[in-house]
Amino acid sequence: MGELIRFGVSIDEQLLRRFDRLIHEKGWGNRSEALRDLIRDRLVEQDWEDNREVVGTITLVYDHHVRELSERLTELQHDHHENVLSTMHVHLDHHNCIEVIVVRGTASSLAELANHLIGARGVKHGKLVTSTTGETL
Amino acid sequence: MGELIRFGVSIDEQLLRRFDRLIHEKGWGNRSEALRDLIRDRLVEQDWEDNREVVGTITLVYDHHVRELSERLTELQHDHHENVLSTMHVHLDHHNCIEVIVVRGTASSLAELANHLIGARGVKHGKLVTSTTGETL
Amino acid sequence: MGELIRFGVSIDEQLLRRFDRLIHEKGWGNRSEALRDLIRDRLVEQDWEDNREVVGTITLVYDHHVRELSERLTELQHDHHENVLSTMHVHLDHHNCIEVIVVRGTASSLAELANHLIGARGVKHGKLVTSTTGETL
Amino acid sequence: MGELIRFGVSIDEQLLRRFDRLIHEKGWGNRSEALRDLIRDRLVEQDWEDNREVVGTITLVYDHHVRELSERLTELQHDHHENVLSTMHVHLDHHNCIEVIVVRGTASSLAELANHLIGARGVKHGKLVTSTTGETL
Repeated sequence: MGELIRFGVSIDEQLLRRFDRLIHEKGWGNRSEALRDLIRDRLVEQDWEDNREVVGTITLVYDHHVRELSERLTELQHDHHENVLSTMHVHLDHHNCIEVIVVRGTASSLAELANHLIGARGVKHGKLVTSTTGETL
Repeated sequence: MGELIRFGVSIDEQLLRRFDRLIHEKGWGNRSEALRDLIRDRLVEQDWEDNREVVGTITLVYDHHVRELSERLTELQHDHHENVLSTMHVHLDHHNCIEVIVVRGTASSLAELANHLIGARGVKHGKLVTSTTGETL
Repeated sequence: MGELIRFGVSIDEQLLRRFDRLIHEKGWGNRSEALRDLIRDRLVEQDWEDNREVVGTITLVYDHHVRELSERLTELQHDHHENVLSTMHVHLDHHNCIEVIVVRGTASSLAELANHLIGARGVKHGKLVTSTTGETL
Repeated sequence: MGELIRFGVSIDEQLLRRFDRLIHEKGWGNRSEALRDLIRDRLVEQDWEDNREVVGTITLVYDHHVRELSERLTELQHDHHENVLSTMHVHLDHHNCIEVIVVRGTASSLAELANHLIGARGVKHGKLVTSTTGETL
């Protein structure tokens, strides 16, 4: 983090009162903290819209008894090894497991990889979540 | 709008620089304006989560040649006349039209009405959009 | 609508049972109707991702007492008259009104227009909703 | 997975042609596979709306040099140990790391936990992703 800069903001009394209530409910420490969070959320959205380098997670829920599915998922990850940072595998019950893959790359390349993984036969549910490298936030 | 209140916000230099660039790109007039917009967006989301009284629009695209569809949609709106404020109908081509219905009520009652309308046989696409009465924003 | 084509689908018993329950809860008439709706939703999403010609609505909530706001919004719509199909204006209370604008064009041109309108000083909340021309659905 | 059930679906020729193109583009194996995916997505959404027991992931990006942040995040996870299944931590650069927490519980309890973690001072970006236990899918 760089230097903190302080500046003034004008907000209608009524709007500010409602915002303060939300800050309290959601457990933010103060207005600056809450506003920084809103700003970062908006910037992360923008990075994805602009196809910049981003970080994301791909979540897959699947039945690991489906023939050759684990091998297929591993293979797909290796084919995109330049985008895959790390993988975590959690057993949910006798059949189902959830796999979370942390990925990094342009928004479009991550979307393509996610499509392949989520579309693999036997994957019950999958989702790509968009986050950030954190570098300029 | 009530009185304007001015207060100080602290933000890291780097984050602020990126936010200023976004403000410029998106055409906001200044930081206060941009922050008010982010705050209002977040509060509107919250109103819907908390099932408060809200305003929304239901958008329907359908082929008006489908037998009895227009009648059915009108009937459904009358059944919920306490929630329906106004309706606009636009012809898109020889077959397709788009109908936008402005609705008001609790989030859950609007969701139920939208379900019925969007689920009507012959409706090709529909969506409920969440907005606000504007009262405390 | 063209000719109806009938084909077979295989689904696990358990998944189908849950889907049937949802069909009942949401008021769809039968499985084909529900599946057509899911397919259309997915295709509409894709049209927006691919920047095809689409139809959408822009919803604005604002205080019409804000100086020159109505004029500004009308002017912006005229600047993009090739994208604006129709506008509806509803009075919510003494101050607040909701305006719904039906728009048509490429996804990116509609996003740009929405940005300008929603960013106008005095607009409390705004949203662009994505729908379809209905042509190939 | 239980027994496979086969049934007939009727879809307009034009809509089916567009769906087939999407199936090809997205790499689904066949129509049944694609439809099962659309159905599962819809059911997972519904589980979250209905506050059933679900599985999700919470993604956090933060600067691990922020004083006491790691301790705070660990503490919050322990306070909700009944919801936390597993955590993965990946270093993105000298400052930033991404942490993915796999969580299980009712939708509302997971939303509350995510609020606390994402709201912690120093967390730059966070998101709760909704998935499923996979049990009845």
